[in-house]
Amino acid sequence: MINIYDDINRLEATFRNTNEFKLLQETVEAVRGDEEAKNLFTSFRDIQVKLQQKQMAGEELLEDELAYAQKAAQLAQQNVKILAMLEAEMGLSRVIEEVNRILTKPVQALYDGL
Amino acid sequence: MINIYDDINRLEATFRNTNEFKLLQETVEAVRGDEEAKNLFTSFRDIQVKLQQKQMAGEELLEDELAYAQKAAQLAQQNVKILAMLEAEMGLSRVIEEVNRILTKPVQALYDGL
Ligand SMILES: [Ca+2]
Ligand SMILES: [Ca+2]
Repeated sequence: MINIYDDINRLEATFRNTNEFKLLQETVEAVRGDEEAKNLFTSFRDIQVKLQQKQMAGEELLEDELAYAQKAAQLAQQNVKILAMLEAEMGLSRVIEEVNRILTKPVQALYDGL
Repeated sequence: MINIYDDINRLEATFRNTNEFKLLQETVEAVRGDEEAKNLFTSFRDIQVKLQQKQMAGEELLEDELAYAQKAAQLAQQNVKILAMLEAEMGLSRVIEEVNRILTKPVQALYDGL
């Protein structure tokens, strides 16, 4: 794992220069700069984080909590700036998935016919 | 996403040359070449795949099925060749996780203070 860092870091630099990364950067800045969008997004995210923590702790989620989280998600996605940011997130996720797909392929091939 | 493939492919070539990848390759070959290890591993994996498919289909897993899967996992891990392969898998997973950690870091940084 010594010289692989050269390649990972080179990839990371190129990654930060992709249109996908730059688009996410721009859309996050647009949300950050709009008080309304920022508040909608942060409350949506805070609710999500709390529910995930409860779920990971093995606690049951109440119907009311789920409905509230769904409402917050709906409200957030009705905001054009947040929607653009979420779409940019998905675009960038696809780049990361592509990296994983290409790295995982030779690993899976090792098991071929086993 | 045009020139990032150069970097991904370069990384993938280095990845295939890591000690972690070569160790997995060797340990998989050792399992493949040992009828007993191969049978233990493939039945363990087949049981796992079936349970995962049931789970993804939303079907409840029976206690007996879980006990059977656990038993198969225990048996498999008692085999030194399979154990070596599973440990090599974990070592290689850590390399892939490291790639993801380094790529994800600048993405998370975009949200700092939001
Ligand atoms: Ca607005
Ligand atoms: Ca044996």
